[in-house]
Amino acid sequence: MIRLNRYLRNATNQYDKISIMNIRFLLLIFIYILIGPASFATDPLTSEGDDGYRLWLKYEPVTELSVKAEYIKYATFIGQSGKGEILQSASSELQTGFQKLLGKNVPVTESPGKRSGGIVFKLIPGTANDRQDEGYQVQLSGGNIVVSSKSENGILYGAFALLRHMQMQLPVKNLNLASNPKVRYRMLNHWDNTDGTIERGYAGSSLWKWYELPERVDPRYQDYARANASLGINGTVLNNVNASARFMSQEYIVKVAAVANVMRKYGIKTYLSVYFAAPKTLGGLTTSDPLDPQVRAWWKEKVTQIYKEIPDFGGFLVKANSEGEPGPQDYGRTHADGANMLAEAFKPYDGIVIWRAFVYKADPKEDRFKAAYEEFVPLDGKFDPKVIVQVKNGPIDFQPREPFSPLFGNMPKTPLGIEFQITQEYLGFASHAVYEAPIFKECLESDTYVNGKGSTVANVVDGSLHSYSRTLMAGVANTGSDRNWTGHPLAQANWYAFGRLSWDHQLSSEQIAREWTELTLTRNQKARESIVGLMLRSREIYVDYNTPLGLSRPWMGVHFAPEPWQNKGARPDWTAVYYHRADSVGLGFNRTESGSNALVQYRPQVQQQWNNPDKTPLPYLLWFHHVGWDKKLSTGRILWEELCTRLYTGADSVSWMQQQWDLAKSSLDPQIYTDVAQRLKIQHREAIWWRNAWVLYLQTFAKQPVPKGFEPPKQTLEEVKKSVNIYLMR
Amino acid sequence: MIRLNRYLRNATNQYDKISIMNIRFLLLIFIYILIGPASFATDPLTSEGDDGYRLWLKYEPVTELSVKAEYIKYATFIGQSGKGEILQSASSELQTGFQKLLGKNVPVTESPGKRSGGIVFKLIPGTANDRQDEGYQVQLSGGNIVVSSKSENGILYGAFALLRHMQMQLPVKNLNLASNPKVRYRMLNHWDNTDGTIERGYAGSSLWKWYELPERVDPRYQDYARANASLGINGTVLNNVNASARFMSQEYIVKVAAVANVMRKYGIKTYLSVYFAAPKTLGGLTTSDPLDPQVRAWWKEKVTQIYKEIPDFGGFLVKANSEGEPGPQDYGRTHADGANMLAEAFKPYDGIVIWRAFVYKADPKEDRFKAAYEEFVPLDGKFDPKVIVQVKNGPIDFQPREPFSPLFGNMPKTPLGIEFQITQEYLGFASHAVYEAPIFKECLESDTYVNGKGSTVANVVDGSLHSYSRTLMAGVANTGSDRNWTGHPLAQANWYAFGRLSWDHQLSSEQIAREWTELTLTRNQKARESIVGLMLRSREIYVDYNTPLGLSRPWMGVHFAPEPWQNKGARPDWTAVYYHRADSVGLGFNRTESGSNALVQYRPQVQQQWNNPDKTPLPYLLWFHHVGWDKKLSTGRILWEELCTRLYTGADSVSWMQQQWDLAKSSLDPQIYTDVAQRLKIQHREAIWWRNAWVLYLQTFAKQPVPKGFEPPKQTLEEVKKSVNIYLMR
Repeated sequence: MIRLNRYLRNATNQYDKISIMNIRFLLLIFIYILIGPASFATDPLTSEGDDGYRLWLKYEPVTELSVKAEYIKYATFIGQSGKGEILQSASSELQTGFQKLLGKNVPVTESPGKRSGGIVFKLIPGTANDRQDEGYQVQLSGGNIVVSSKSENGILYGAFALLRHMQMQLPVKNLNLASNPKVRYRMLNHWDNTDGTIERGYAGSSLWKWYELPERVDPRYQDYARANASLGINGTVLNNVNASARFMSQEYIVKVAAVANVMRKYGIKTYLSVYFAAPKTLGGLTTSDPLDPQVRAWWKEKVTQIYKEIPDFGGFLVKANSEGEPGPQDYGRTHADGANMLAEAFKPYDGIVIWRAFVYKADPKEDRFKAAYEEFVPLDGKFDPKVIVQVKNGPIDFQPREPFSPLFGNMPKTPLGIEFQITQEYLGFASHAVYEAPIFKECLESDTYVNGKGSTVANVVDGSLHSYSRTLMAGVANTGSDRNWTGHPLAQANWYAFGRLSWDHQLSSEQIAREWTELTLTRNQKARESIVGLMLRSREIYVDYNTPLGLSRPWMGVHFAPEPWQNKGARPDWTAVYYHRADSVGLGFNRTESGSNALVQYRPQVQQQWNNPDKTPLPYLLWFHHVGWDKKLSTGRILWEELCTRLYTGADSVSWMQQQWDLAKSSLDPQIYTDVAQRLKIQHREAIWWRNAWVLYLQTFAKQPVPKGFEPPKQTLEEVKKSVNIYLMR
Repeated sequence: MIRLNRYLRNATNQYDKISIMNIRFLLLIFIYILIGPASFATDPLTSEGDDGYRLWLKYEPVTELSVKAEYIKYATFIGQSGKGEILQSASSELQTGFQKLLGKNVPVTESPGKRSGGIVFKLIPGTANDRQDEGYQVQLSGGNIVVSSKSENGILYGAFALLRHMQMQLPVKNLNLASNPKVRYRMLNHWDNTDGTIERGYAGSSLWKWYELPERVDPRYQDYARANASLGINGTVLNNVNASARFMSQEYIVKVAAVANVMRKYGIKTYLSVYFAAPKTLGGLTTSDPLDPQVRAWWKEKVTQIYKEIPDFGGFLVKANSEGEPGPQDYGRTHADGANMLAEAFKPYDGIVIWRAFVYKADPKEDRFKAAYEEFVPLDGKFDPKVIVQVKNGPIDFQPREPFSPLFGNMPKTPLGIEFQITQEYLGFASHAVYEAPIFKECLESDTYVNGKGSTVANVVDGSLHSYSRTLMAGVANTGSDRNWTGHPLAQANWYAFGRLSWDHQLSSEQIAREWTELTLTRNQKARESIVGLMLRSREIYVDYNTPLGLSRPWMGVHFAPEPWQNKGARPDWTAVYYHRADSVGLGFNRTESGSNALVQYRPQVQQQWNNPDKTPLPYLLWFHHVGWDKKLSTGRILWEELCTRLYTGADSVSWMQQQWDLAKSSLDPQIYTDVAQRLKIQHREAIWWRNAWVLYLQTFAKQPVPKGFEPPKQTLEEVKKSVNIYLMR
């Protein structure tokens, strides 16, 4: 584009006879080039704008001319010594980036010699199998930009870091980008089913087209891989943890291999969730007992079969004896027995076994909060070194706010990975804007006090506390076939944030939000700050209208509509009343000594934070205490008033979010602006729905009026229930 | 683009000093304009090519310069008298088309006066509510291209006809495009569920985003409407016939209204499938008995409520007392009682009630073939004039080949609409290329002999035989959220063919295939003919390897894998053995007098075609006869040999299809070429799978070797069963 500009300048200087008409026509072409393709990309039929497909890899032309001139100095060649396919991906990504950022076609050479003015890859010899190998350095040297790493992955990550830098139009001078991942296994978990549906997915159908594989390899797989690699994600579990045994058949293994062939080029290993009963249902054995020699042999053979097709296969993810899934306990064995049997099958290979700790028994007298700890802590030290136990961030189930899981820190001999949920199961599906980095950070920064102050969950997870070498951060993906990948355009930021934090958990929520907004939405500083402000407050706003003061909502069903009145479920802990425990006295789950005593699973310093209702921070209050309706809180309001205040102000704040978004309007692509504006409208309507449901329902216990200043709901409780029931119908 | 070419020509002539370098640079821009946007549209990240989103409305630049010059003569204005929103759509479509076809921005004027050189809309006054009103004429007059019709819809259809003409670069000279629809209600039926899944959908998730509506209106709805309007489709049923009662709630009615607002602009009326038990489940009544006054009142109120939000609401589609759905028979009432109750509710409005005749009782001794006739023929004359009975093309269930339903012609007092299935439930999902126009045509051209020779199904359906005024053709949609709408790129042709035939059932399959191929894939004649050849043979090839000689396969399950051995099902007629009746003697369902005598439901002339196994055309043989394995057929081969021959040659012919497709390669967009080539590979593998399944299974009865010249399957029957069982697992 800029070349055209220059051409126009030159043209008028040199050939002043060129008619104004022709110049004007060239300008029209110029405008067409600038605007045409973008509108085309979105929707080649009628509508205009950015359809969000490009995510944070838009590579829009660099507009700062001085910066651009600097970049161009290093855009004469890409020196790629070595033919590794990941290096090739790095080169081709840089080529794509330079083409779009600078309008320059940069050739790749394998022997740059002593040339300068290029980007040069430098693979540092002597690598070991360690997360540090994936680190990179990008700096100026000998008139080139040198991207160095001990691994091909690191080169690729360095290339993406450079492109991120250039997208933000930052100076080349004193360039020194260097970073090492803090966690070794950084991966997405897809809860995708074989029929193309996604459990808890809100962005269309699955990206993986099992009926088309292996012959047809959707071009989108590659863009998926690029997006992940750009964040440093190096693993993906393709199928739902409620797993299908299909994936252990040769038929499906070759399908998976076709996907893995694409992922491999971007340094991403492919993993599978496995169905623990597969030896019986698929293999035709009479048992799936992990101590049975035939069962062990079956899994060994399976793993061997997989490695024949996928030499860099990542490993298995297992949900066992959880929510009805089969597992080793069906045969009187432990989780460790099950996991170790699988680990044994992986012995000859690099692969690992990731065993989920999301377990709880359906006992109405027990506190589900305590279940994972009770089942897993006694097994510490009994797992094979190839096993990582994957623990959800909180003890229950991805609530808008949860205390950290008490497992963290309490299995010092067992690598504990952390599982976050990116998809918005409890966060308003694809119509509520909730920026999740603060949720992830809140957990990671929580102090377990296991080895004294500063023993954060992050330090457990990154291995620094207990010297785990196999460290893991997993995120349940929010991707789907929707053109913009995530349904809500702002939900892209959650994928981005998870990826960036899995690489470096010390990045701040704000830093990530700013980075993402600049790469994805707008470079206008004012608009960006307005959006970043919206993002940073969005989670607290959601909590306020959805589950304030430590309420939670893991009740049965689709997890869409408010149902605090739900008191019947397939299990006691699949009802609402099990959690909020509202009665004429008050509200909340007593988990202190006088209650379920779940608090005892934490270190004393943590207990101290939460065991006294007068001192418990309000966001966690009802997680740990049954609090009287008239109890005066630190805000000066009684519980009932405080609840109402948060529910009302939370819903009000969605209007504020709408305003913030509108402030950025003129700097946003119109299609994305409209999309988000429309979703914010839905969010506003539904926030009021949630507020009304809680207020009217809890009022039947609290027997108090809506506090002054807030307008009581126009609907009755029965009307709200009726509107909810619509969503429970087929 | 052409203007740039001219500029280049002028430039070199006039300013010979312009350096070659600059010219080369301009050429680069030119190439970028030509190639850039297309590659951008597909995939703004990496891959290149056409992603199929634009369907047959690509409006690619006219390349024939003489033709283009002609078109440009009429591209100075669009004369749109009247402000109706459908007229506006016609204008805007012409603007889009002219912009892309000719690179011309054509202004719209409401008062063209006596200007010439434009496209002028002419609404002929004095309209009535009749299908004829939707006809159009497009011809030259007074130096303009005049698009005339009695209705706005007709103007829109005329505009699309003109654009089709121009996309094919046909001359303007003697332009006279005139056409009247032969059927009044031309509609798609979406089997889309509230959770975004599509029953029998193979192209991603539903287009309708119920959780986002009404606030967010996906821009894609409009492109959906445009595509349908371009074919003359004027109705769409948004939700599955296995209907959710949700749609009768105010909550959902306003969501539907938001979609209807988009459809309306393109002359498309919105319909809903209804859940017959809604008065109970949603309305809280104690019954849904159609003769109960409260129930009748409830539906009246519902319909009134809908019309408040959707003033042009189309009506209801009902699946009742069919496959477990509730219906009037639950209360001892008839289909007519149920339909008439709903029709009564529509009395004050234009809407209609479409009542499906897809019913059958689970009686192992009965022949499901006869069920619809037996239930519906006695009701002839008992339906309210606002009711149309919608009959599937065949008596069973959208099989690759079926005889026409014996209902056609046998309910002279009841308008019978026809229901085709566009989505490929039994036709290989999204990985088999099966061009369906021959299926539709075969049924439409079947002669019922009801009023003597020439009483074709088409004449029943278009009302000419029995003077129905309300005539209907419905197609079960194959659209989904996949970027290319239909999964398989060639499946777009089935949507296209259904739409074109619903407008004019006299178009030939070949004509439609040629038109679609030219609009969508290539203008190269040789390539086009190669593809048209592939398309025209594709259905017979599919039948040969899938269900030759009149076999059928409406067995239980996902309808993906071969399961001719299936003998257990939730109902007797949900097994395979119920249909093929293979035994040691032979194969096929005896529906003659000595068997179920289903043939008696047809007129004698039809019976004569099919009641004698020696004279029955082979494609229908096993539909009507149990034929001995050694029975000599008209081909000179015995049944077993003929079966094997068809199964083998059918699978072989997929290789031929691959060759045909490859012949066109150089004239095809690379992305579309690769996509189809990969799917043909799948088709080839699965064709062999089907062949082997049938051959090995039927061999256990026929006890004969695979005929000479054909290589026996390498797998055993047990191995094939095992490979099928994989697809039956969760």
